[in-house]
Amino acid sequence: MNKGKIKLGLIGGGPNSFIGIVHRIAAYMGEQYQLVGGVFDIDHASGIAFAEKLELDTSRAYESLEVFIEKELALPADERIEVVSILTPNFLHHSMAMKLVDAGFNVICEKPITITAAEAVELEQLVERKKVVFCLTHTYTGYPMVRQMKAMIAAGAIGKIQKVDAQYYQGWINPFIHDKDKRAQVWRLDPKKSGQSCCFGDIGVHAFNLIEYTTGLEVEKVLADIDTLYPDNPLDVDGTALIRTKDGVKGVICASQIATGEENNISIMVYGDKGGLKWEQENPTYLTYMQEGKPAQIFKPGNPYNAEFAQESTKIAPGHPEGLFDAMGNIYKGTALAIRGEKVREGAFPGVKDGVRGMKFIEAVLESNKQGQAWIEIK
Amino acid sequence: MNKGKIKLGLIGGGPNSFIGIVHRIAAYMGEQYQLVGGVFDIDHASGIAFAEKLELDTSRAYESLEVFIEKELALPADERIEVVSILTPNFLHHSMAMKLVDAGFNVICEKPITITAAEAVELEQLVERKKVVFCLTHTYTGYPMVRQMKAMIAAGAIGKIQKVDAQYYQGWINPFIHDKDKRAQVWRLDPKKSGQSCCFGDIGVHAFNLIEYTTGLEVEKVLADIDTLYPDNPLDVDGTALIRTKDGVKGVICASQIATGEENNISIMVYGDKGGLKWEQENPTYLTYMQEGKPAQIFKPGNPYNAEFAQESTKIAPGHPEGLFDAMGNIYKGTALAIRGEKVREGAFPGVKDGVRGMKFIEAVLESNKQGQAWIEIK
Amino acid sequence: MNKGKIKLGLIGGGPNSFIGIVHRIAAYMGEQYQLVGGVFDIDHASGIAFAEKLELDTSRAYESLEVFIEKELALPADERIEVVSILTPNFLHHSMAMKLVDAGFNVICEKPITITAAEAVELEQLVERKKVVFCLTHTYTGYPMVRQMKAMIAAGAIGKIQKVDAQYYQGWINPFIHDKDKRAQVWRLDPKKSGQSCCFGDIGVHAFNLIEYTTGLEVEKVLADIDTLYPDNPLDVDGTALIRTKDGVKGVICASQIATGEENNISIMVYGDKGGLKWEQENPTYLTYMQEGKPAQIFKPGNPYNAEFAQESTKIAPGHPEGLFDAMGNIYKGTALAIRGEKVREGAFPGVKDGVRGMKFIEAVLESNKQGQAWIEIK
Amino acid sequence: MNKGKIKLGLIGGGPNSFIGIVHRIAAYMGEQYQLVGGVFDIDHASGIAFAEKLELDTSRAYESLEVFIEKELALPADERIEVVSILTPNFLHHSMAMKLVDAGFNVICEKPITITAAEAVELEQLVERKKVVFCLTHTYTGYPMVRQMKAMIAAGAIGKIQKVDAQYYQGWINPFIHDKDKRAQVWRLDPKKSGQSCCFGDIGVHAFNLIEYTTGLEVEKVLADIDTLYPDNPLDVDGTALIRTKDGVKGVICASQIATGEENNISIMVYGDKGGLKWEQENPTYLTYMQEGKPAQIFKPGNPYNAEFAQESTKIAPGHPEGLFDAMGNIYKGTALAIRGEKVREGAFPGVKDGVRGMKFIEAVLESNKQGQAWIEIK
Repeated sequence: MNKGKIKLGLIGGGPNSFIGIVHRIAAYMGEQYQLVGGVFDIDHASGIAFAEKLELDTSRAYESLEVFIEKELALPADERIEVVSILTPNFLHHSMAMKLVDAGFNVICEKPITITAAEAVELEQLVERKKVVFCLTHTYTGYPMVRQMKAMIAAGAIGKIQKVDAQYYQGWINPFIHDKDKRAQVWRLDPKKSGQSCCFGDIGVHAFNLIEYTTGLEVEKVLADIDTLYPDNPLDVDGTALIRTKDGVKGVICASQIATGEENNISIMVYGDKGGLKWEQENPTYLTYMQEGKPAQIFKPGNPYNAEFAQESTKIAPGHPEGLFDAMGNIYKGTALAIRGEKVREGAFPGVKDGVRGMKFIEAVLESNKQGQAWIEIK
Repeated sequence: MNKGKIKLGLIGGGPNSFIGIVHRIAAYMGEQYQLVGGVFDIDHASGIAFAEKLELDTSRAYESLEVFIEKELALPADERIEVVSILTPNFLHHSMAMKLVDAGFNVICEKPITITAAEAVELEQLVERKKVVFCLTHTYTGYPMVRQMKAMIAAGAIGKIQKVDAQYYQGWINPFIHDKDKRAQVWRLDPKKSGQSCCFGDIGVHAFNLIEYTTGLEVEKVLADIDTLYPDNPLDVDGTALIRTKDGVKGVICASQIATGEENNISIMVYGDKGGLKWEQENPTYLTYMQEGKPAQIFKPGNPYNAEFAQESTKIAPGHPEGLFDAMGNIYKGTALAIRGEKVREGAFPGVKDGVRGMKFIEAVLESNKQGQAWIEIK
Repeated sequence: MNKGKIKLGLIGGGPNSFIGIVHRIAAYMGEQYQLVGGVFDIDHASGIAFAEKLELDTSRAYESLEVFIEKELALPADERIEVVSILTPNFLHHSMAMKLVDAGFNVICEKPITITAAEAVELEQLVERKKVVFCLTHTYTGYPMVRQMKAMIAAGAIGKIQKVDAQYYQGWINPFIHDKDKRAQVWRLDPKKSGQSCCFGDIGVHAFNLIEYTTGLEVEKVLADIDTLYPDNPLDVDGTALIRTKDGVKGVICASQIATGEENNISIMVYGDKGGLKWEQENPTYLTYMQEGKPAQIFKPGNPYNAEFAQESTKIAPGHPEGLFDAMGNIYKGTALAIRGEKVREGAFPGVKDGVRGMKFIEAVLESNKQGQAWIEIK
Repeated sequence: MNKGKIKLGLIGGGPNSFIGIVHRIAAYMGEQYQLVGGVFDIDHASGIAFAEKLELDTSRAYESLEVFIEKELALPADERIEVVSILTPNFLHHSMAMKLVDAGFNVICEKPITITAAEAVELEQLVERKKVVFCLTHTYTGYPMVRQMKAMIAAGAIGKIQKVDAQYYQGWINPFIHDKDKRAQVWRLDPKKSGQSCCFGDIGVHAFNLIEYTTGLEVEKVLADIDTLYPDNPLDVDGTALIRTKDGVKGVICASQIATGEENNISIMVYGDKGGLKWEQENPTYLTYMQEGKPAQIFKPGNPYNAEFAQESTKIAPGHPEGLFDAMGNIYKGTALAIRGEKVREGAFPGVKDGVRGMKFIEAVLESNKQGQAWIEIK
């Protein structure tokens, strides 16, 4: 039945979770989802209290994923949770996603999709076999002006692409990294919790994703130089990756968590033989379009001159800024359309394929660095 | 009972309403409200369909305000709608607010609060007598950096204020105003629907409110020059108001709907004997703080260096932009606290007093212009 | 003879003069002038030393204006100084300009042209009778993007003008104004040295000039509210002027020297029925052009898409910023063309008429304020 | 004798030369130089006409460098040209500089200093032996805010540097590069005229220089990936270089001439363990200083809070933009001090060592690319 709201479950994202509130608001925003239950906390009592606070049926605040799956599957189809958002620590994403997909649930998964590329491929195959909807929340693809950029490039606004450059600079690790004890306590620097990579796994992969998302190009190989800053720190906190696409376009991805003072400075520049496009996440309502021999143009959301895809991604009149929650809301809206079986625009939400591409990119970056900055193919 | 969500009703804001989606998202955002019912549309069938789409109990999609009040009052107190958002056309705000307040409902009211200052005063008295919570949605006061500005000024960051300047420029009327037939069809230019003023009533009053909100100063008198552009257009589409505060501070408020190409350019600059502060709505995450003899500083949301009030008004880490929906969400959150009887920070939501001040300002502007730009006191 | 460089004399602007270096560099820049002599300092010995430092013929470092005129007139015409820049304190401009013009010299005069409007008119009549070239250095008119703005408006890019807004905010008086002794020592606050007005005389008039320069409109009347901040301070340090042009366009001019933290923030916005244009002096290489329903465009100097007038006002390839010295250099270049009797583009340099307009504006502002904010015509 | 102006000669830079006007204005600006003669054009008659136009002694408009040297050396020392600016095509810089230095002239040389690193080293040795002043015009080092950045880093404002990133993006080659005939005619793409590298030789080296200039770090090795875009184009038009400094700091230099729509977008970001600094050439009057846990600060020229070096590099009050000509003027001023034998601040002008470093960097970039992106040491 496509009429009502989609029943949503959450794994993780309970009390005091920053990412939890982002997902819940995104779900509320489009009025497409109804939060029904989930595993809100490792501590069952706390999860029940959370459900109470949100006025949910506490019987659907489960103690574990296994119980969640068992109990929900036992419900009649029209009462059952249809889609589950996985907001747990990184190392749990893969196993949880596998179980949920295997049980037939649609899944919305926080990044990173898995810890290894092999796991991502395994998950991709399962998703395809199970024919469920799988959304990977590369949030920045939900911004209207990122979608406008994608639409303009697809429409030929900048011609044949000849250079790509994306950057993601943060400084948040700086206060921790210089002290041996402090850095040992940062979970993102702990391979067991964080995975193989910190900087490229957490943020560099966003820059990579933005390039493939907006341009439609496929990165073929990378050469990367990464930095752990201290020998006892096992994971990268900074690095640069040279890239080449299948079409021979060269480019660069810069990422850093020791860019002291930077907050969340992700930006992308794409240049073609007819023009260029630039976008920065911290000023997300401005897209700069440069054309050979003409004044640069500033595209802003909410205007009829934008592509349909961008127009659909705005809820409000021009000049009223929308932000990160709205971007995530757009991704949830796109996913809802897919769950309902409606026609979905390409790019309406990132999927399992984006996850596989990202994990392969991260592994290629690490391998390149290990080999002393060799070119590594992303197969 | 303070535990559960606050039961929310809506009057207006149904299908295809731009302002409706803003209020609903704002209500969802803080997880403080549960939308229960309302009068969603003039057409009852359409209102019921809307309730169905949102999976509400259709029996609470009422045909009129009168029925709404009667039926809700008949419910047990713990089932009853506790707060009602009024999102109807301007000319209905006053009478609806009077009826709802009189019946004991808390109210969240779209701007303008009423059509005349006298009506606003009447409403203010009723609100005081009935001791209900009344929120007027001057949305821009919900931005974290506006609240930071208010907190910094209160803390003396710029010293004694010596100059204020606020501007609200839009261009949206330009495509309609130059054609006699077209301008006759713009509802905002129709005194019956829009009230006494278009430009100052709709946007100039926001600039006025931002000044009083951030500075704590009270504007004592105004001298205004307004423009209808064409003699057959009964309402202002542009104008400038000189202002003086009780403390003798001089300032200016510029407003225009014929500033062709401008989208929603509202900004405020306040200068004191120790420093200055500047903020622009279209780049809401930047607050510029200038001090005598020092480099300007750029304050951004989500940072611990901000005042508590500003910190509480952000949901996310620094560098992730929040926008208009988040600003409205903050106002809804503040209102929820008040409804629950909890301690509420001054400025957490604009109230009936702001409405009275705004209406008096608008009438003073009109009177000043009528008298050929005379100084008119705001009593 | 038009072949060689124009012989330039300076009155004032000697050692340690800030404005002196601006004019000399402006003169050198276009390689149109040769500095030959002048009255460089009240102290003759210091003036001679200055001439020596600049490797000038010290016999042409005169002790007074009278001697300057006498000695130069005694020289053969082809050796004589052809144009004199007046860089003395404000109160001397008028008498010096009168003497020089009367003696047949071309004049480049710093702002303000005179202390009163009557003096300016007197000077204007003499200039017309003597048929000399007279340049008043409203420096901001020399910026390429201001000229582009003028050219675009003249070419109809924004259609019929319907709103003008110019602002000039500084904070430099703030450190002096709050202390009775300090403010008594600021020469700009001393009517004997500064003239009738401080804020409007020094900076407000620039905003006025920019409006008339870029739009071609003539301001017909003004209503102004000015502020001295302290009763014992005789001159304005802040104010706002409502304006109306002959064609009925309304607008506003805001000026302040107590906008704490502001450096030299002069900006102009002009809106027509087809589009709008915005420019800010502190970012002088960007001109924003907004059109109904289209993305805003950013015009930058050095590009072939600019009007000829703007192109001629840049010396360098796009992307290499030019600044204030270059703007003044453009005005000197325009003046040189006029002195040589060559065809000069309208607007290539501001003239005596701009001086008369400015003085009348200042007097109207003061009179309006004196009458309690009445409308005063600029005759 | 230190009293008078320094006698300046020019080689090249005559009629219609873009770079000629930059150098002449820079020389005039500080009133330290007097242009006396030179070899203004390959065509002697045209050179003489140019001298006439500038009112120079035409007997010092020489037909060749050889004649220039012979005739000037024949003059008494106090009449002789003391410093010569070399503004000829790239391939002539080395031989001309060698001859001039060998003859004892001080030299101001346009970039690139030579075609090969070996030539640069040869020149460096001669300069040292001859004890002349040698200035290489890396113009961007003349901006006040670049000097402020250098001074702040030296003073420890950002602590120990941990990441550097510089970029130089232009799009000017785009209109020519895609057509086989057109690109064959671009002199910068002709190795005979331009040298071994186009993009890195012309602009990438500026980014490299800015890094070493502002940080004081020495780049030890590079790994570069460059792009000619078409196989028949012999020279690079785009590329990225990974860098490592002697202290183990990692960084990246991005350069492109096919960044379509970019004008002259050179920027630098340096991050340390205490803060970060960012500067962009197209907005040269803003320097962003970020500190851990504090609002970012915006430094602007002309303010007493700046370092002395930066203060000395501004001629005017805050808020009046200075640009590229002023930057070059600062370099000329620094060179003048050195020629006069006065104390010169480190960094007051770039010298032959900067030229040697730059050429070695360029050759390392090319070698790295040739070897398939290997790490190459800069010896």
